[in-house]
Amino acid sequence: MKKFNIQPVDCSMQAAIQEKIDNLNKPKGSLGRLEELAMQICLIQQTLEPSLAHPCHLLLGGDHGIEREGVSVSPREVTWQQMINFTHGGGGVNMFCRQHGFKLRIVDVGVDYDLSGIDGIIDRKIARGTKNFLHEPAMTEQEFDRAIQIGCDLVDDCIAEGCRVLSIGEMGIANTSPSSIWMHLFTGTPLKDCIGAGAGLDTPGIRHKYEILNQAVERFKANGFEPLSYFGGFEMVAAIGAMLKAAEKHLVILIDGFIMTACALAAIQLYPAAKDYMIFTHCGDESGHQRMLHAMGANALLHLGLRLGEGTGALCAFPVIDSAVRMMNEMNNFDKARITKYF
Amino acid sequence: MKKFNIQPVDCSMQAAIQEKIDNLNKPKGSLGRLEELAMQICLIQQTLEPSLAHPCHLLLGGDHGIEREGVSVSPREVTWQQMINFTHGGGGVNMFCRQHGFKLRIVDVGVDYDLSGIDGIIDRKIARGTKNFLHEPAMTEQEFDRAIQIGCDLVDDCIAEGCRVLSIGEMGIANTSPSSIWMHLFTGTPLKDCIGAGAGLDTPGIRHKYEILNQAVERFKANGFEPLSYFGGFEMVAAIGAMLKAAEKHLVILIDGFIMTACALAAIQLYPAAKDYMIFTHCGDESGHQRMLHAMGANALLHLGLRLGEGTGALCAFPVIDSAVRMMNEMNNFDKARITKYF
Repeated sequence: MKKFNIQPVDCSMQAAIQEKIDNLNKPKGSLGRLEELAMQICLIQQTLEPSLAHPCHLLLGGDHGIEREGVSVSPREVTWQQMINFTHGGGGVNMFCRQHGFKLRIVDVGVDYDLSGIDGIIDRKIARGTKNFLHEPAMTEQEFDRAIQIGCDLVDDCIAEGCRVLSIGEMGIANTSPSSIWMHLFTGTPLKDCIGAGAGLDTPGIRHKYEILNQAVERFKANGFEPLSYFGGFEMVAAIGAMLKAAEKHLVILIDGFIMTACALAAIQLYPAAKDYMIFTHCGDESGHQRMLHAMGANALLHLGLRLGEGTGALCAFPVIDSAVRMMNEMNNFDKARITKYF
Repeated sequence: MKKFNIQPVDCSMQAAIQEKIDNLNKPKGSLGRLEELAMQICLIQQTLEPSLAHPCHLLLGGDHGIEREGVSVSPREVTWQQMINFTHGGGGVNMFCRQHGFKLRIVDVGVDYDLSGIDGIIDRKIARGTKNFLHEPAMTEQEFDRAIQIGCDLVDDCIAEGCRVLSIGEMGIANTSPSSIWMHLFTGTPLKDCIGAGAGLDTPGIRHKYEILNQAVERFKANGFEPLSYFGGFEMVAAIGAMLKAAEKHLVILIDGFIMTACALAAIQLYPAAKDYMIFTHCGDESGHQRMLHAMGANALLHLGLRLGEGTGALCAFPVIDSAVRMMNEMNNFDKARITKYF
């Protein structure tokens, strides 16, 4: 696959950033997580005056062959129906993008429906859904490379508009299944602890999902395939490409819920330094998400029980991240404010 | 004291609200806490189309006689210095108000400094700080009534401008001390578990604070005073008045950190139904805050380790609450979006 030049953030400014934070007119440390976020963003951008200019959200859509095995409570058609709904502005992702000033790109990477004539959908379709990984690899290596490149190109388009912060969401019925498998393979967590209810499976549904995924993993292990192309959704691999390109270009990357965290995990497997550029925004109720974050040493910003997907957790967390940046740029320091320094 | 007419929210619309929430184009329950917030706000406002029009923030300042006992790491002068700093726009509260479109009212309820000539500070000063409750009641009953009325009048001013959501913050060096005592008295939690580091006390400092507060509580108990006026800060009693008036008028009330939660606790002691109108926005690291929320059966929205005061936690949480309202007003339902209902 394509090579990326991803460097760990340069920490030589750390002391200067901390000094600026500590001299803002507030008790030391009293803005808690905002101060940690400010440090991270200043290091990513190598500045004392960070910016979240031109926030962009990629909404990547794709269908999954594994959906044919009844692993999801929602039928496959919901993917394309929702993609069209997003173009009318009525989805959760639209509401959050409007609220927080994100430019939304709705991208068909592999939806099983002809969306080519629909205004507002960027057509990057690789195929009408992946193959069923219970029986065969979800995609070829060529398709994998195309999906990575699609993610890169989308990020380049955002950067060309001045984007400094990127958020990524997905629409793809059944995509918790490959996410659970990646979590299992990359963190060593037992598969059953990686599987949750998705959008609302009951207990027998979860048991069936486990049995299907376990079969798929055993066949995979018996062969020697590459896990990203074997299980990945087109929208998920495009997300990995977008994350890696964004890290290479020193963007702030907002990582959403279970599926995007699994993509972040995959991206970090490939380039560990990519993690420096990521903010883990939300931990939902999907069983395994907390475990996956823990295995990655990540501490999510919000815990609001969201499980809608579409990147809504990342978008919902944006104003908190924005507050961290405003803190650096707008708060007075003790000297300027003429306040007795607290301690 | 003044009487309020505070009714529990009328729950007869609950089924209709839930039906609207469940028919939005998302898996049932998938917007988690946002759905709970939407329900609460719709019930407060008795509508399916809630509004957070004209958000207002009251920043109430006052000094505390107990500060003379060395219970705070910050000197008393920080109260007036910060009040002036807020008029210049350089405080944490200013930054958050600008970010989220809150109209900020900076009110001197009892700061120990002459702020009467300062542009941007509303002069409602009752006295230059409260008395030292280690030796005598912090305020007289007349002063208490005045502080309650000040809070009411401020809320009336907000409502006259069209305000539907009220946030309250405080600036008052040493005001964690009366907050801890109210928590102890109203929840029965042992006093030592109600006392934390405030803005940064070390372990001997916390021990000293405990000894002073414990003495004060024992003298108080030996007499038979009224706890709100005996311990309260002017800014805290004004906050209670504002909360009660806001509940009477069916505003959405954003409750900030430890000190404002203690004021909410006091307000609920007086009028239990006031709680229906309150959203507990943030749980900080102040020891005891989590315990106090738990004792009140409240589950805070954010956990960001903030301990700045000024109402910054409440302001920081506003966009999440705004998202809940936008969900009700902006998301398509399944019929309109022509999407197969998930389950």
